[in-house]
Amino acid sequence: MDPLVHLPSVPLRQRTQSTEEFNAIPAHVYPCNTARRADGVMSVAGVPLTDIAERYGTPAFILDEDDFRSRCRRLAKAFGGGQRVHYASKAFISKTVCRWVAEEGLALDVASQGELQVALAADFPPERITVHGNNKSRDFLTLAVESGVELIVIDSLQEISLLSDVATSVGCEQDVLVRVTPGVHVDTHEFIATSHEDQKFGFSLASGAAYRAAMACVDAKNLSFRGLHCHVGSQVFDAAGFVLAAERLLKMWAGLLQELPREEGERLNILDLGGGYGIAYMPDQQALDVEHVAANLLEKVAEASYKVGVPRPVVNVEPGRAIAGPSMVTVYRVGTVKDVETSDRTVRRYISVDGGMSDNIRPALYQAEYDVRIANREVEGDLVHCRIVGSHCESGDILVNDLPVPNDVRPGDLLVIAATGAYCYSMSSRYNMMMRPPVVTVKDGESAVMIRRETIEDVLSLET
Amino acid sequence: MDPLVHLPSVPLRQRTQSTEEFNAIPAHVYPCNTARRADGVMSVAGVPLTDIAERYGTPAFILDEDDFRSRCRRLAKAFGGGQRVHYASKAFISKTVCRWVAEEGLALDVASQGELQVALAADFPPERITVHGNNKSRDFLTLAVESGVELIVIDSLQEISLLSDVATSVGCEQDVLVRVTPGVHVDTHEFIATSHEDQKFGFSLASGAAYRAAMACVDAKNLSFRGLHCHVGSQVFDAAGFVLAAERLLKMWAGLLQELPREEGERLNILDLGGGYGIAYMPDQQALDVEHVAANLLEKVAEASYKVGVPRPVVNVEPGRAIAGPSMVTVYRVGTVKDVETSDRTVRRYISVDGGMSDNIRPALYQAEYDVRIANREVEGDLVHCRIVGSHCESGDILVNDLPVPNDVRPGDLLVIAATGAYCYSMSSRYNMMMRPPVVTVKDGESAVMIRRETIEDVLSLET
Repeated sequence: MDPLVHLPSVPLRQRTQSTEEFNAIPAHVYPCNTARRADGVMSVAGVPLTDIAERYGTPAFILDEDDFRSRCRRLAKAFGGGQRVHYASKAFISKTVCRWVAEEGLALDVASQGELQVALAADFPPERITVHGNNKSRDFLTLAVESGVELIVIDSLQEISLLSDVATSVGCEQDVLVRVTPGVHVDTHEFIATSHEDQKFGFSLASGAAYRAAMACVDAKNLSFRGLHCHVGSQVFDAAGFVLAAERLLKMWAGLLQELPREEGERLNILDLGGGYGIAYMPDQQALDVEHVAANLLEKVAEASYKVGVPRPVVNVEPGRAIAGPSMVTVYRVGTVKDVETSDRTVRRYISVDGGMSDNIRPALYQAEYDVRIANREVEGDLVHCRIVGSHCESGDILVNDLPVPNDVRPGDLLVIAATGAYCYSMSSRYNMMMRPPVVTVKDGESAVMIRRETIEDVLSLET
Repeated sequence: MDPLVHLPSVPLRQRTQSTEEFNAIPAHVYPCNTARRADGVMSVAGVPLTDIAERYGTPAFILDEDDFRSRCRRLAKAFGGGQRVHYASKAFISKTVCRWVAEEGLALDVASQGELQVALAADFPPERITVHGNNKSRDFLTLAVESGVELIVIDSLQEISLLSDVATSVGCEQDVLVRVTPGVHVDTHEFIATSHEDQKFGFSLASGAAYRAAMACVDAKNLSFRGLHCHVGSQVFDAAGFVLAAERLLKMWAGLLQELPREEGERLNILDLGGGYGIAYMPDQQALDVEHVAANLLEKVAEASYKVGVPRPVVNVEPGRAIAGPSMVTVYRVGTVKDVETSDRTVRRYISVDGGMSDNIRPALYQAEYDVRIANREVEGDLVHCRIVGSHCESGDILVNDLPVPNDVRPGDLLVIAATGAYCYSMSSRYNMMMRPPVVTVKDGESAVMIRRETIEDVLSLET
């Protein structure tokens, strides 16, 4: 048992005010096809979560296919085409998900050799793949170049010569972007305009390192320099930070165009502004307004291009969480319900579920907050202060630190946590030898296993 | 990419002062058989880490069998026998490790059905197994009772009736302890004597909940109440916190003995004081002095028993990290070495390795600190300020936040991180589809794979 994670005292969000409100479902936090039937049972895409629990066991991730696909389409439309929208596969990747992304016409980001291998195993069109990473190995780069990926995002000087060497060996020219740290870090609604340069990714714009890296790409054999990339933050809710970063990158772009031979300059036309599109984890949050932000961003990029006198580039974006996040929920079975008394006579109810930090590390790692409902029935009684905890042998194994829950929640109930599609399964572990849950897809009243539950045999088979 | 983990600014420990010091090996932080050969290559148990890297690839966990076993023996001797020392398997479990623990005569703690299954698959003697958990399912309890485990540690009132029911179904009597929160929380050298009750584990002593739970166990059919359990903290370095907790538990014990029928009272003889035995992660730390703390603790328990007028109980302890932690190191290959300039003209060197938060989440999760050396050679040059980062697509993927490293560390070097035996492999994930490394055992100049490296096929085979 590692040291207790001292969660910061959470500013009291607008919490559930009544049992009635707890039984309602905040539509903007749950997959679009979520409903509560007249008998009180929650369903997603017409499949009752009670059926899911019975058929596939708990815990289980439930993925609403329509929800996932509709977010792909909405982003593609807002940004002028699927080829502009790169699904960031690190949020959640599987072969099936790669196929959905391909079918919806989107592009794909991979950040490791393993992610690229999954995409290729799913026959994702390599000419729509962009490759990221601060430490790409020769093997990874070779696989990427040989597969014919569209773009590789350069992250260090060392990588320029390594990739040039690889491309020369393979015998082709590889299109590249240069990752720039523009000194803009957005954290939800606020941003700091001169920070975040002290990190492993990219080249600093302010120091001139980014400019020098771009010129090195131009000079490198078999690399074709196509544009600039940046990433400004996570859970961003408006366009301001993206716009500021774009303006800074376009100024650099103008400087490059002055120095580059015309032919080289004409190839430069991609401005990749990264991901970070915010979603609503909690009822009092509103997801980033995709259409509004896209329109604003594209307009401001056009203005800024005009202002610095460069041709307007295409704008690529890299949403991961904004596509996968809200499309999934996790269903757990309630086990122990325990009122913990302390010496100062306070009582807190601990509701234990059959998963925990192994299937969702985000509360412990990022102090992330999640919305909770009961899936098998409408519950009754007054609201009591609860903490939702997992089954791990660690006191920091907390899924929701503090929330009001009606007091008749009891062992055997099904507890659902919303918006677990991003960075939950993908970061899952087997801590305490708890097996990874399955991912079950639902659509039009039917369910299917996308990824099966792991078993003790999977674990034992690793030991020779 | 989730929000950046803002690491607190680390109080500057006594850092490496010179290149010479960096090339030396702090013996108390590394496995006991670690050495640097005349040619500069580090070896563990006579096996050069360069050979390990070549034969098994990187990253890889290297486990010094002698080190692991010698810690088992040392603890068993200090606490009066192996049956008193329960290896906490959550720190790191495999079938082979269970066999080592069994051969050294120790007992075993499991905290989940999966851990119990691994132990049983290794033929660990069930009569030496203690079962923990805040949310044990009926299936888990049934497997435990049917297997004939020694002790089950009761964690809720609900569990008392559930376990009584299970034991009755199986047709046997199950020995149990009651987990008590004595209001003692130890965090390294300091402890707070009235806190830590607001957590999912145990029954509060101060509120009377623990007393009532104990009496409920006595009354429950087919349960045999054998004693009390508590856990005071992690990375504890002296006996004071354990002693205070023991004194509090023994007072409760005396109260119980006054109320219980003599026959019931006579069965009460186990005081389990949990784990938390501190190890040295960094050169300026010293591990808990096992012999000194054990002697002190046993003496104080004897005194306290005498004082409150109860027969002296046996004392069980539950070290996990103190056995597995220092016995393992992780070997990585250095990839990108990059000097990151920022607009305020500071430069920090980022050394990327081919693993990261997937094989060691502890720096990101607990702000844990680790010691780093170069394994393939003695390095030269002045010390420069570095950050050791992994290959994940996340800026918080930091293994060591800030340390001085000689400035000729370069791509291709082997970087070793010490004391990764506990809570690294056991909490490992496949984030970014990076595969779990192998665990390689070394002994007497020979190496062997204990757990093989995962492959992309392992991942893809989960998808139907």
